Amino acid sequence: MTPAPTSTPTDVFALAAELVGVASESHHETEIADLVEVRLRATAPGLVVTRIGDNVVARTESGHERRIVLGGHLDTVPANGNATPRVEGDTLHGLGSADMKGGIAVLLALAEHAADARFDVSLVFYEAEEVAEEFNGLRTLFRDRPELVAGDLAILLEPTGGWVEAGCQGTLHVRAEFDGTRAHSARPWMGENAIHRAADVLSRLAAHEARPVEEQLVAVDGLEFRESLQVVRIEGGIANNVVPDSCAIVVNRRFAPRWSIEEAREQTEVLLAGADRITVLNASPAAPPNLTNPLVAEFIGTLDLAVRPKLGWTDVARFAAHGIPALNFGSGDPEIAHTEGELVTREAVEGCHAVLAQFLGIGPSVP
Amino acid sequence: MTPAPTSTPTDVFALAAELVGVASESHHETEIADLVEVRLRATAPGLVVTRIGDNVVARTESGHERRIVLGGHLDTVPANGNATPRVEGDTLHGLGSADMKGGIAVLLALAEHAADARFDVSLVFYEAEEVAEEFNGLRTLFRDRPELVAGDLAILLEPTGGWVEAGCQGTLHVRAEFDGTRAHSARPWMGENAIHRAADVLSRLAAHEARPVEEQLVAVDGLEFRESLQVVRIEGGIANNVVPDSCAIVVNRRFAPRWSIEEAREQTEVLLAGADRITVLNASPAAPPNLTNPLVAEFIGTLDLAVRPKLGWTDVARFAAHGIPALNFGSGDPEIAHTEGELVTREAVEGCHAVLAQFLGIGPSVP
Repeated sequence: MTPAPTSTPTDVFALAAELVGVASESHHETEIADLVEVRLRATAPGLVVTRIGDNVVARTESGHERRIVLGGHLDTVPANGNATPRVEGDTLHGLGSADMKGGIAVLLALAEHAADARFDVSLVFYEAEEVAEEFNGLRTLFRDRPELVAGDLAILLEPTGGWVEAGCQGTLHVRAEFDGTRAHSARPWMGENAIHRAADVLSRLAAHEARPVEEQLVAVDGLEFRESLQVVRIEGGIANNVVPDSCAIVVNRRFAPRWSIEEAREQTEVLLAGADRITVLNASPAAPPNLTNPLVAEFIGTLDLAVRPKLGWTDVARFAAHGIPALNFGSGDPEIAHTEGELVTREAVEGCHAVLAQFLGIGPSVP
Repeated sequence: MTPAPTSTPTDVFALAAELVGVASESHHETEIADLVEVRLRATAPGLVVTRIGDNVVARTESGHERRIVLGGHLDTVPANGNATPRVEGDTLHGLGSADMKGGIAVLLALAEHAADARFDVSLVFYEAEEVAEEFNGLRTLFRDRPELVAGDLAILLEPTGGWVEAGCQGTLHVRAEFDGTRAHSARPWMGENAIHRAADVLSRLAAHEARPVEEQLVAVDGLEFRESLQVVRIEGGIANNVVPDSCAIVVNRRFAPRWSIEEAREQTEVLLAGADRITVLNASPAAPPNLTNPLVAEFIGTLDLAVRPKLGWTDVARFAAHGIPALNFGSGDPEIAHTEGELVTREAVEGCHAVLAQFLGIGPSVP
């Protein structure tokens, strides 16, 4: 039996399959956090490992001028008949394979050599990304231990299909309410129908979304962000013989990083003109692509990576809000994340690992 | 003490106040039905009284050629802070005063002399008119004992403010559903928004109802029926980050007695064009005013009563559906029925009684 040399590369694809086998639906990340912590302590002895709740942070303290933060969430959405990993040749099927056990595997493999990187490196494994903002582990870390997540560039291993997805759009939910006056529906003219009153605004919103695609694009740093505004809920009426006195809609607007939350809110309110009350339910800022930032430019340029805007909101905006340029780069197709058909390929996981290793100076050049 | 002669007229206003004091919310009519039954047996010995559930029918069997059916429901809507009757001078305030304890009092007073009428008379006191069709006492009687409610003209003591409200409009409820395709609201173009799809139809319906009043009128027998179509419910959306795949509306159309249910449905479907599915939830036919019917003409003409169309659906349509001309004529303002401010005046109750007594030939001529 030949002893394994320490330089034998970790099989990140096999590791991803192992991680998919560890259930970690949001709020149930303890087992996978334990696994990550134990593995880091065993395979990356040069790193300082900190456990806070089910968040695990492993950091080098090599005294480099710049620090790269690499992050990934440990949780998955609920299983959808795909809880058990299934490897077919070089394809890994199963819950979290793309979002984002593949990325967690890449981070664990990078950890083994992070002490040799040309930057200081912080590896951040965190809980509860797939659920309400209040539970988000990265939010907890920024609030309680910001020094653990500070750095000069953050890369999140969200599934991007090997693209760099730069920045992200902001998201804003508002409720618009329309009032009316109840009356018997046999004499509706004695009242005022709140649902009928909402019709104009609904038509305006539907027409706004039906505009040509080019009118929905907003360019930032040369990237075209496609904005959107959707009515995601509507409710009105109390009884089948009563003219309704209230109708409420919830609108979700996704806005390019050209706009602040306040600007996005104002633009949305213009489209909702006619509503009696508009209430902001929640708002998360957009994150700029920061393509002119030297570290971002180096990451993209040296490795000649393809870049596109991130349309969904991700935790890159949390880094951006703390002044840290951030981007998404990971394995797996974002379109199939959260679907029962979720999968990731060996090529994707190994490719993601190779790019990051080269950027950190701990791997061979990517061809 | 002077013995009361049998001809001392009953104080119908005081009787109405007494009846308001007997709670009879729908499904709880036993106490008032008992009271009605006992009183009929005591004060109208010539009548044949039949009790079926909480329905009470009192009939003459005098052998006249024609029979007049006089009907009123015993139940009320739920109390609204107005359960206790309050008499202020000649005004009776309280739940059911207009709808329709005043009418019940009139029927009980008429019963005392019904045996002397120039027609045969059937007095029908019934339960559960203010709730779902399936509980309606008149429906039960037509189904189980149609001979008890048969006749040549039916007059319902619904509150009409002393007008003859002839016929009634039909009512039709339909659900219209719009389909879409779910997608993440960050990428709405991957799906199709069902609420946005409904916007065109909503606008069409709202515009239809915003037409000038004269375009909403349909003349039948010279009466102008004002039709209407209201969206009474709308619902759509499942989560704030998901493009909704369904939106459903419920529409209530009130249609003039020119149209059959089938015609009303077809007209409604034209307005709903664009919906993926249209389902009829319930439909009640309109009742024709029948102003040319000899008995109707005699009732209105001899007494020179003011006539207007009935816009709400009432049980006159049930009589009409069984081939019996029917109209609404009662005391109390229909606009304040079902409100906490419900009331009826002595003049209204006594006036209603006087008109009906004259028509039946058991009272002095109304001036």
